[in-house]
Amino acid sequence: MPAISQRGGHMPPSPIRKLVPFANAAKKRGTKVYHLNIGQPDIVTPQTILDAVRHTDMKVLDYSPSEGFESYRKKLVEYYKRNDIDVAANQIIVTTGGSEAILFAIMTCLDAGDEIIIPEPFYANYNGFSTSAGVKVVPIPSGIETGFALPPIEEFEKAVTPRTKAIMICNPNNPTGYLYSAEELNVLKEICLKHDLFLFSDEAYREFCYDGRKHISALSIPGLEQHAILLDTISKRYSACGGRIGAFVTKNQAVLDAAMKFAQARLSPPSFAQILGEAAVDLPADYFDEVHAEYNARRDLLVKRLTAMPGVKCPMPGGAFYAIAQLPVNDSEKFCQWLLESFSYNGATVMMAPAAGFYATPGKGRNEVRLAYVLNTEAINGAMDCLEEALKQYKD
Amino acid sequence: MPAISQRGGHMPPSPIRKLVPFANAAKKRGTKVYHLNIGQPDIVTPQTILDAVRHTDMKVLDYSPSEGFESYRKKLVEYYKRNDIDVAANQIIVTTGGSEAILFAIMTCLDAGDEIIIPEPFYANYNGFSTSAGVKVVPIPSGIETGFALPPIEEFEKAVTPRTKAIMICNPNNPTGYLYSAEELNVLKEICLKHDLFLFSDEAYREFCYDGRKHISALSIPGLEQHAILLDTISKRYSACGGRIGAFVTKNQAVLDAAMKFAQARLSPPSFAQILGEAAVDLPADYFDEVHAEYNARRDLLVKRLTAMPGVKCPMPGGAFYAIAQLPVNDSEKFCQWLLESFSYNGATVMMAPAAGFYATPGKGRNEVRLAYVLNTEAINGAMDCLEEALKQYKD
Repeated sequence: MPAISQRGGHMPPSPIRKLVPFANAAKKRGTKVYHLNIGQPDIVTPQTILDAVRHTDMKVLDYSPSEGFESYRKKLVEYYKRNDIDVAANQIIVTTGGSEAILFAIMTCLDAGDEIIIPEPFYANYNGFSTSAGVKVVPIPSGIETGFALPPIEEFEKAVTPRTKAIMICNPNNPTGYLYSAEELNVLKEICLKHDLFLFSDEAYREFCYDGRKHISALSIPGLEQHAILLDTISKRYSACGGRIGAFVTKNQAVLDAAMKFAQARLSPPSFAQILGEAAVDLPADYFDEVHAEYNARRDLLVKRLTAMPGVKCPMPGGAFYAIAQLPVNDSEKFCQWLLESFSYNGATVMMAPAAGFYATPGKGRNEVRLAYVLNTEAINGAMDCLEEALKQYKD
Repeated sequence: MPAISQRGGHMPPSPIRKLVPFANAAKKRGTKVYHLNIGQPDIVTPQTILDAVRHTDMKVLDYSPSEGFESYRKKLVEYYKRNDIDVAANQIIVTTGGSEAILFAIMTCLDAGDEIIIPEPFYANYNGFSTSAGVKVVPIPSGIETGFALPPIEEFEKAVTPRTKAIMICNPNNPTGYLYSAEELNVLKEICLKHDLFLFSDEAYREFCYDGRKHISALSIPGLEQHAILLDTISKRYSACGGRIGAFVTKNQAVLDAAMKFAQARLSPPSFAQILGEAAVDLPADYFDEVHAEYNARRDLLVKRLTAMPGVKCPMPGGAFYAIAQLPVNDSEKFCQWLLESFSYNGATVMMAPAAGFYATPGKGRNEVRLAYVLNTEAINGAMDCLEEALKQYKD
């Protein structure tokens, strides 16, 4: 029997995959499971953008251009302009989800053996795409003590080698919820210019910034035009995760030309959800106000409840819809499994993502969990009631 | 300015990319262009499957499971059973087009530096995905003289090295239209068992077999269960290219487990077109009869017209909707460009794909073109009138 590849063997499993069978078993026993483990919002997808798909009168569901429909890319130019990002339609490649934008960035800019610096903890699939491309992830530490702020410039300097080709950030951050400041982005600019590195900026959560703070895109940093690659997705913005529509955006022509060859090899992004994405740009401005208010309330509640529990730490996230909490347990994976396997309170339990899977450094994050506040406040209260009670009962 | 990766630099351009600006210029001049260059069928997508998408009443467009909706995979089991392929729902991973199935197969089974044997000419994007994975394509020759039959087993033996991990076929073949016989598939079986190789079988055109011949899937060859990986797509079958739904199917559990990690990294395949694909399995049996009769008529007409032209050779394709023709020209790329740039007949011209882009061996296929008979018979006659006249006028 022929053997699978080494890269297939090295692909990291999803940080929650191991727990899924325990969650399914809990549901079979009749226990309600509050899913705070994944970034699948419960916010309804706006009716008008679903209707745009329902009302298409196409005769042939044909390939879109490899770079995406021109009409959609022109609409995206409007969208980006409203967000202080000044790009042209031909600087945008529509991708199959943000996932493919990440893959294109890695493939286009790094060879096997090259290195990419990523502040940890980070979105676990960065590791998966890097592994599939033979690229080495070099983590630099950000920790719960500093609220997951960008590490000082010295940490980057220490991590740069001749094989370093890029720095990757997610802003606002998944899994930490951290929102980078103008000062921090300037540190990144300095290091990218000094060492001639690309800056991959995953801005999936651009609209989700709280406390009146404003998001700054890597693409709008003067002087970084040839270095910055914006990785984007409509998944979280419009609660449209299943559409699989994202974008790869850069002003660097050589990068665009090479990325287009990867885009051509896979022919085209999905047509239906491009129609949805195009309609989404015309949503009324108050759409985000409502969504924003909802997430803001959820965040405030979640952090209030968490920090009221003895021994629990949770820095207030500045953006996205995630928070990392430190729990008074030794091994959060065991605790999360126990929650699903052996615990219930009022007929319910809570599923969270053990944070170790978001760190590249072995041993880090072992007493931390990631919580996605994608459920309504009633459900968050129910989930926090469970967690509070569980922490009282649990013995490591 | 940071430089792109070597793999980005090495990615092969699409075989028709260079000609697209000339086609656009021709259209701007008012010349009608018959597109026989790409496999975009003009056959309408069945109304009932488009309606399945239009009539969804989802509230949240959420992620599907990474392996695809269970209901869809169960339907696919029915579909495969009707095609003498006996698989279980958990042996199917729904992919983003056939493209992603190809990528998963290469990533799962081959490491950088490994080799894959592919009879040439072959679908050009096999080369792109191999390049992005650092995998070396080893072509073995099939030629127009033998009607593009599978090369004899000695050719495979000569090509196998310790780095060979897989053989890839497309059956029926794009770009040649060749349909492999039971004997030929047995040759592949023999070589795969002897050298412990995977067999990747791209069966995108399964339903398009002519002259009463029957398609044989690699997955239904006894003894090859642990070697065969079926790569599939609904794109051509239902004229649903823009849906971006395919499938990765194998009975090899280690391969499935590894491929699932690549599937999880990209989260999920597109939701909308999975709904369409699920509805397609319930299309009445006579759907393919009509489509089949239409393509059969197109094929017969195309080959009849081509072979009536002095100096033109075109073996009768047994399947798919492509044909390779040898033309009485020295450089088909120059000829194809000239057709778009300097020629018109009755206000029209024809766009074809120069065949050299489908060969890995430099210099091969230079006097050949690939024609996709994806237009109706009237358009094919119009295109052939152009080609016939052009060959009279053209001077190399």
